[in-house]
Amino acid sequence: MELSLFARRFGGDSGVVDLMRDLGEAVSIHPDMIMMGGGNPGRVPAAERLYRERLRAVLDDPALAHGMLGVYQSPRGDERFRAALARMLREECGWAVGPENIAVSNGSQSAFFVLFNLFAGAFDGGRRKHILLPLVPEYIGYREVGLSDGMFRAERPAIERLPGQLFKYRVDFGQLAPDDSAGAICVSRPTNPTGNVLGDAEIARLDALARAHGIPLIIDGAYGTPFPHMLFTQTTAHWNDNTVVVLSLSKLGLPGLRTGIIVAREEIVAAYARANTILSLACGNAGPALATALLDHGELLALAREHIAPFYRDKAARALEALRREIAGLPCRIHKPEGAMFLWLWCEGIPGGSHALYQRLKQRGVLVVPGRDFFPGLIEPWEHRDECLRLSYAQDEERVRAGIAIIGDELRRSYGG
Amino acid sequence: MELSLFARRFGGDSGVVDLMRDLGEAVSIHPDMIMMGGGNPGRVPAAERLYRERLRAVLDDPALAHGMLGVYQSPRGDERFRAALARMLREECGWAVGPENIAVSNGSQSAFFVLFNLFAGAFDGGRRKHILLPLVPEYIGYREVGLSDGMFRAERPAIERLPGQLFKYRVDFGQLAPDDSAGAICVSRPTNPTGNVLGDAEIARLDALARAHGIPLIIDGAYGTPFPHMLFTQTTAHWNDNTVVVLSLSKLGLPGLRTGIIVAREEIVAAYARANTILSLACGNAGPALATALLDHGELLALAREHIAPFYRDKAARALEALRREIAGLPCRIHKPEGAMFLWLWCEGIPGGSHALYQRLKQRGVLVVPGRDFFPGLIEPWEHRDECLRLSYAQDEERVRAGIAIIGDELRRSYGG
Repeated sequence: MELSLFARRFGGDSGVVDLMRDLGEAVSIHPDMIMMGGGNPGRVPAAERLYRERLRAVLDDPALAHGMLGVYQSPRGDERFRAALARMLREECGWAVGPENIAVSNGSQSAFFVLFNLFAGAFDGGRRKHILLPLVPEYIGYREVGLSDGMFRAERPAIERLPGQLFKYRVDFGQLAPDDSAGAICVSRPTNPTGNVLGDAEIARLDALARAHGIPLIIDGAYGTPFPHMLFTQTTAHWNDNTVVVLSLSKLGLPGLRTGIIVAREEIVAAYARANTILSLACGNAGPALATALLDHGELLALAREHIAPFYRDKAARALEALRREIAGLPCRIHKPEGAMFLWLWCEGIPGGSHALYQRLKQRGVLVVPGRDFFPGLIEPWEHRDECLRLSYAQDEERVRAGIAIIGDELRRSYGG
Repeated sequence: MELSLFARRFGGDSGVVDLMRDLGEAVSIHPDMIMMGGGNPGRVPAAERLYRERLRAVLDDPALAHGMLGVYQSPRGDERFRAALARMLREECGWAVGPENIAVSNGSQSAFFVLFNLFAGAFDGGRRKHILLPLVPEYIGYREVGLSDGMFRAERPAIERLPGQLFKYRVDFGQLAPDDSAGAICVSRPTNPTGNVLGDAEIARLDALARAHGIPLIIDGAYGTPFPHMLFTQTTAHWNDNTVVVLSLSKLGLPGLRTGIIVAREEIVAAYARANTILSLACGNAGPALATALLDHGELLALAREHIAPFYRDKAARALEALRREIAGLPCRIHKPEGAMFLWLWCEGIPGGSHALYQRLKQRGVLVVPGRDFFPGLIEPWEHRDECLRLSYAQDEERVRAGIAIIGDELRRSYGG
């Protein structure tokens, strides 16, 4: 069987494929594996109850049930959902948006596939453009979505060492000089994998930089604001007509409904929707149907702020405390957790590197993600890439604690302690 | 805003984008439009009741509800669903398949995007391959999914004129000579848009031809067998290790759940799943959760055979009778309806062509699809392309009859009768 060059690009092993395969295999083959690898969200009882109740109400109403199950969504997504969401974004966040600024996707990964390939890749006259990532580590799933090579460009971040074995990456604005081949600037906020949150001033600087170069600023808000609001610092929800915000229902506890949301100026929404129609025909209705019900009842933001945010804030604090205890005295540091649901552990000079560490942990029943694939666009060699791990603390308290204890033990062995 | 060459390819107007926009606009802006355009399935009360009941049961079970809403599916799709489906395909269709031969997609359109680009497009050494379509007209949604030009190749079909103003396209096996640049052979069965059904002997010939050239035969079973079984002729469900069958839940009445299914030998399933993970991260869980419940209760095939098939068979017969009455005496013919949910109308020598006819019908409140974009891969000019219309008869009886009456009236005016 001979496969195409596309197959080689999209059919080979990749960080995100390994990640999702690990996640799937662990669930189905190793029911006892402590899952600190993939991005499955935690279980928030109040949220689960509410989703089931609202979905039951949709099923009990023949017209709503038919709208959810029996019809194709139009290219930009369900009208009622887009209107309800636009109203909330106007009223609660002060964004100057209407339904025309919103499009739905089958999860944010496929939104990024389209957006990145709209703004970067091959251009007229043999020119090539890239997506500029101001801060790596950055989301593992970006790495392979480019239809051609050189889709991303990134420089090393500045590293700020903080007390208590913490550290924080900082955008090195001095190095950040987009040239004509930058097609867009993109950041995740909070950052997956580090839990870093770019401050309002940093976002303002990136926004100005994007405008000055006539390119959009894309903000991946999968963990961000206004929902799911997995943020532990004071953060303003940023949008303007040069910003593309990508939101998602997944981290509200709904990854199975595959619902991403693009908020952008209308010409971008239109270009996205045309490409998405060819690639996917239409998006799923279940996520928008549920979200519309939550918006109609005024429950979406309340849920995020009153249940999702504190759930992860507490888990972050407990996981940080436990991991800090384990690494005391070792040459390890934890990225200051400001949002999302991960601890990013830097094991300086770890013998054999963090990929081997990940393998050993898997053998011991703890699934984490090695750091090396979280640096899309960084070309220069950097040993730091092979010294980091991403640990999710979204799962059950007790299991996370057990996982952290095994990680600590394995680290001490690794350093020969 | 400067967009990439990808944006030009995937962001321009296209047949399927027009189709889905028409569908969306008509639903939201013209509630009175008679919808004979897009592919929304009909409403089968027994099916709707069953889906709602089974989904309610999933929501009532906390573990099942969490499996549907709260976790990411593994790259090939939910294990339980794939096991249950494989068992049914083995027992009911005699296919030699296990769960390893099955992968899930977010609807069959995105499955075809991946499959076509795996088997055709750019290859090592600057070579290019195409998907060979033995019979056009063929599905409008294929046309633009290629990442490069020349993705499809097709020749004119033979036309058999039948009594009663009917006709039927036939594969012209004499012209069908794949060369080294054919990467796969693909047919939809039943054919969207014509309602043609390739007979078992024709499929056997295509299967032998594909094997002889070492390329797979892809069968798009979105309307076919074993489900939804919108077939009005005796047809065997074909699969072997050189066949890729793509199934879908959409025409069972579930397009809102975006669930496509690939059945293929394992190396193809693996290549598909890797690419799909990069493009989509994971597939939706709602369709697989519902289908698993139907399979566990032994209801999926029974529903297709006892409710879906007769529903469309009756609608086809009534629509055919009504349209035949309208075109009596006009130089029009209807493709013999053997499956799916469309009448394909050939208006020989229609003044101004069928695209203008489609526009006039839209003005009069009837939405149909003009024929010209249903000939992917056909390079030579052929006036026949601009003489055809696709009419869906899936919607309410009375509205379909009213639509057909307007179409008849407009045809008589068009021919100056």
